[in-house]
Amino acid sequence: MSSSDIFIGEIIGTAVLILLGGGVVAAVTLKNSKARGAGFLAITLAWGFAVMTAVYISGPLSGAHLNPAVTLGIAIKDGVWDNFGVYLAGQLLGAMLGATLAWVAYYGQFRSHLTDPEIIGDQAEKPIEGPHNGSKAGPVLGIFATGPEIRVVWQNLATEILGTTVLVLAVLTQGLNDEGKGLSILGGLITAFVVVGIGLSLGGPTGYAINPARDLGPRIVHALLPLPNKGGSDWGYAWIPIAGPLAGGALAAGIYNLAFA
Amino acid sequence: MSSSDIFIGEIIGTAVLILLGGGVVAAVTLKNSKARGAGFLAITLAWGFAVMTAVYISGPLSGAHLNPAVTLGIAIKDGVWDNFGVYLAGQLLGAMLGATLAWVAYYGQFRSHLTDPEIIGDQAEKPIEGPHNGSKAGPVLGIFATGPEIRVVWQNLATEILGTTVLVLAVLTQGLNDEGKGLSILGGLITAFVVVGIGLSLGGPTGYAINPARDLGPRIVHALLPLPNKGGSDWGYAWIPIAGPLAGGALAAGIYNLAFA
Amino acid sequence: MSSSDIFIGEIIGTAVLILLGGGVVAAVTLKNSKARGAGFLAITLAWGFAVMTAVYISGPLSGAHLNPAVTLGIAIKDGVWDNFGVYLAGQLLGAMLGATLAWVAYYGQFRSHLTDPEIIGDQAEKPIEGPHNGSKAGPVLGIFATGPEIRVVWQNLATEILGTTVLVLAVLTQGLNDEGKGLSILGGLITAFVVVGIGLSLGGPTGYAINPARDLGPRIVHALLPLPNKGGSDWGYAWIPIAGPLAGGALAAGIYNLAFA
Amino acid sequence: MSSSDIFIGEIIGTAVLILLGGGVVAAVTLKNSKARGAGFLAITLAWGFAVMTAVYISGPLSGAHLNPAVTLGIAIKDGVWDNFGVYLAGQLLGAMLGATLAWVAYYGQFRSHLTDPEIIGDQAEKPIEGPHNGSKAGPVLGIFATGPEIRVVWQNLATEILGTTVLVLAVLTQGLNDEGKGLSILGGLITAFVVVGIGLSLGGPTGYAINPARDLGPRIVHALLPLPNKGGSDWGYAWIPIAGPLAGGALAAGIYNLAFA
Repeated sequence: MSSSDIFIGEIIGTAVLILLGGGVVAAVTLKNSKARGAGFLAITLAWGFAVMTAVYISGPLSGAHLNPAVTLGIAIKDGVWDNFGVYLAGQLLGAMLGATLAWVAYYGQFRSHLTDPEIIGDQAEKPIEGPHNGSKAGPVLGIFATGPEIRVVWQNLATEILGTTVLVLAVLTQGLNDEGKGLSILGGLITAFVVVGIGLSLGGPTGYAINPARDLGPRIVHALLPLPNKGGSDWGYAWIPIAGPLAGGALAAGIYNLAFA
Repeated sequence: MSSSDIFIGEIIGTAVLILLGGGVVAAVTLKNSKARGAGFLAITLAWGFAVMTAVYISGPLSGAHLNPAVTLGIAIKDGVWDNFGVYLAGQLLGAMLGATLAWVAYYGQFRSHLTDPEIIGDQAEKPIEGPHNGSKAGPVLGIFATGPEIRVVWQNLATEILGTTVLVLAVLTQGLNDEGKGLSILGGLITAFVVVGIGLSLGGPTGYAINPARDLGPRIVHALLPLPNKGGSDWGYAWIPIAGPLAGGALAAGIYNLAFA
Repeated sequence: MSSSDIFIGEIIGTAVLILLGGGVVAAVTLKNSKARGAGFLAITLAWGFAVMTAVYISGPLSGAHLNPAVTLGIAIKDGVWDNFGVYLAGQLLGAMLGATLAWVAYYGQFRSHLTDPEIIGDQAEKPIEGPHNGSKAGPVLGIFATGPEIRVVWQNLATEILGTTVLVLAVLTQGLNDEGKGLSILGGLITAFVVVGIGLSLGGPTGYAINPARDLGPRIVHALLPLPNKGGSDWGYAWIPIAGPLAGGALAAGIYNLAFA
Repeated sequence: MSSSDIFIGEIIGTAVLILLGGGVVAAVTLKNSKARGAGFLAITLAWGFAVMTAVYISGPLSGAHLNPAVTLGIAIKDGVWDNFGVYLAGQLLGAMLGATLAWVAYYGQFRSHLTDPEIIGDQAEKPIEGPHNGSKAGPVLGIFATGPEIRVVWQNLATEILGTTVLVLAVLTQGLNDEGKGLSILGGLITAFVVVGIGLSLGGPTGYAINPARDLGPRIVHALLPLPNKGGSDWGYAWIPIAGPLAGGALAAGIYNLAFA
């Protein structure tokens, strides 16, 4: 794969991932959406299918990492760091593009939601639990970035590390299945359900970023977009969904090299 | 594939698609249905399985396009326009047949629902937001055709374009996966989950037509069927779920030819 | 496949199908069940996975018909009627065994539910709509057999015919996919989702028997079991989920022979 | 496979299984979890994806039994008992590790839930039905171990036996499908949906342990963890989710050897 194919593939794939993933949170959250209130299961299933769709689309171009934690885990496992920066740059740009497109798709819903006095009032009164470095989550930030229900730094980090370790270990062991025949045809589907499972099982405390680009890119877009009454971007929390998933990716590669190689 | 196989395959496949797809909206909407209130997740999953079932049934005959946007995307990608009109004619006829069969399957439920004074009264009082060219959505139109929660022409178009671009790009890139082994055995299943994902993630604003035949065919049937108190067919909106998906299919083919070919 | 393998395979497979399928309706319906109120989507998904599990278990022995409508469709398509009666006998016995095992699994729940004065009182007051030949549905009959929400004979028949036609057509066309490579490894999974789709989309009016053995076998068990306050077995309706699915299976074979052969 | 690979593989796989499986019950149950109240379908789907993820990760090392009932069934079927104890030791240790990790991931949620006076008060007032040997279920025990809604020893045993028989029979017959091509690539996915099906269909009475290690390991961890107001570990019930699944595994192997071998 050439660097330009990787760059373009990761942009397209991560844009699809965040368009669909951000989209479902908008769909379930915002006023005047047909899916409003569809629930946590709908959100986790849709994120899984977002991963699957993005994997099958970008796989032929870039191998579909779509996640710096996956790129890091593969680099550690293989000891090959070529194109490492290309992958990360594509992922971050793609995530920003995807978040912007999700905003376009739900343009009227954002406006309707954020100008509803009752919604804005409710949100303003909702306190954030635990210490939070003065950061504050706005009423639609959850469509862009993750946030903890209870702010306990070590636990929030631990939950992100555990979720990402499972994800990256599942990605790394795929090639080992079935005596060399590999899982590649099924890989996108299996990975989708792994992500749904992690979301349902470990998404409760922090909203399962398990992917630094998925969180940082849309958080930047949230900060930039001209949304009325959008509130803060909670930058005090932003390092956790970066550091946790990267640590999880590295941990998975370590487990792989110790136990599976 | 002969033109007659294509024509018959698209009629059968699109009829199955709309029988099941229209069916689930009837199932979740209408009075005296066991599935009433089953929710948006049930609707999107069932539309996905409707696509899957239709793909596996009609695939051997016509290749299972079932959607003018898919036919357009494939034609642009390959530069081959043979049977283009045959596909579209089969799709429109199949969609009309399927919508009629869904009405047969829910005959008593339609009658019971549309003669309930409380339901009809509620519906009549519900205003349509935004400008709507004098068109008006009837109380069961949603079982046949899509409609926007907020009428903003450019956004409604954009949402349909985005959803269809993702769908057609996923269809076009399937042949690229796994070094020529192809995804064809799994294609129907993967496409089903792509459609579920698009529905959950991008269905909130307009109800995700992402297929001109899926919207136009059943809308014509709604206009023709002798349903009591059925209300208008919202013809003022009907061009958007035609133009948007076609533009999305063309855009996907363009992206494919630029980045993947 | 020998006749004895077919007989044993169909008994085991159909017993698993009805143990799980009857089980989920018990799980969602009965008092003191952890799944009470889990909803229509849970029921349809579980019936799909019941089909899948039964197909993979009994497939090696009998080919996993598990449904007289499937057996009839295959016999008409191939013009081969060997073992026709063996299949049907195994299916009916298996369905009766499965319904009995579902009752064993939910023994305490049945007792608790059927001796609750409030539940029994509510049920007794619920009128059955439409003409019903004096037949009456008891409070737990739905765990065993299907029944219509609105009794319109031609519609009830039509809904069962449509659902079964889609099912059997999907079964018959499987061998045609992917140029002879067949869908057999995936067959059970695909068929499961076809059944989930039919349930969600066409299950609203009659509860989608789409299988004469699935309805008749458990209805006989309902009539025989010593359940307190169980009410009638609604024998006046029992012919519809036999005749409808058989007609649908024959129709599917006819469509197959005309359009696909 | 070497004994050490089996031991390590079963530890890793069962830890992933219980981290995700215990995690989803925590996610749906505990205060301050984003998934609170997501329902029984979410729980059963997540347990299925937990099995799938664990199977694909540990499969290359240990063959992914992850369940003493599966290990017993395979040993009886093949008449080979090598590494029997290694499998069981790995499974029990892995289950204890996974339960501990689930507690780490939901640390703040456990604390918040178990120090809420209203939650603790409600729980204390809830009587346990039926005879229970003086054992008592604490307010978060359900995150670790299973328990019956109605305590009827023979029924609770029977439900666990039936569920496990279906599971192990589905595992044992996998190799028979598709004339030797096997189901191994799809095995983890199919098994996942079998487990979802068993959960939805037979989980109502006892919460479907269907795996002695899944129940005993986390129950030990519940007894050891320093949780405030955690209540009893219900040791009077603990033998049923051990004896029932082992009997089911043996029964499945017996059916296999009689009907399929």
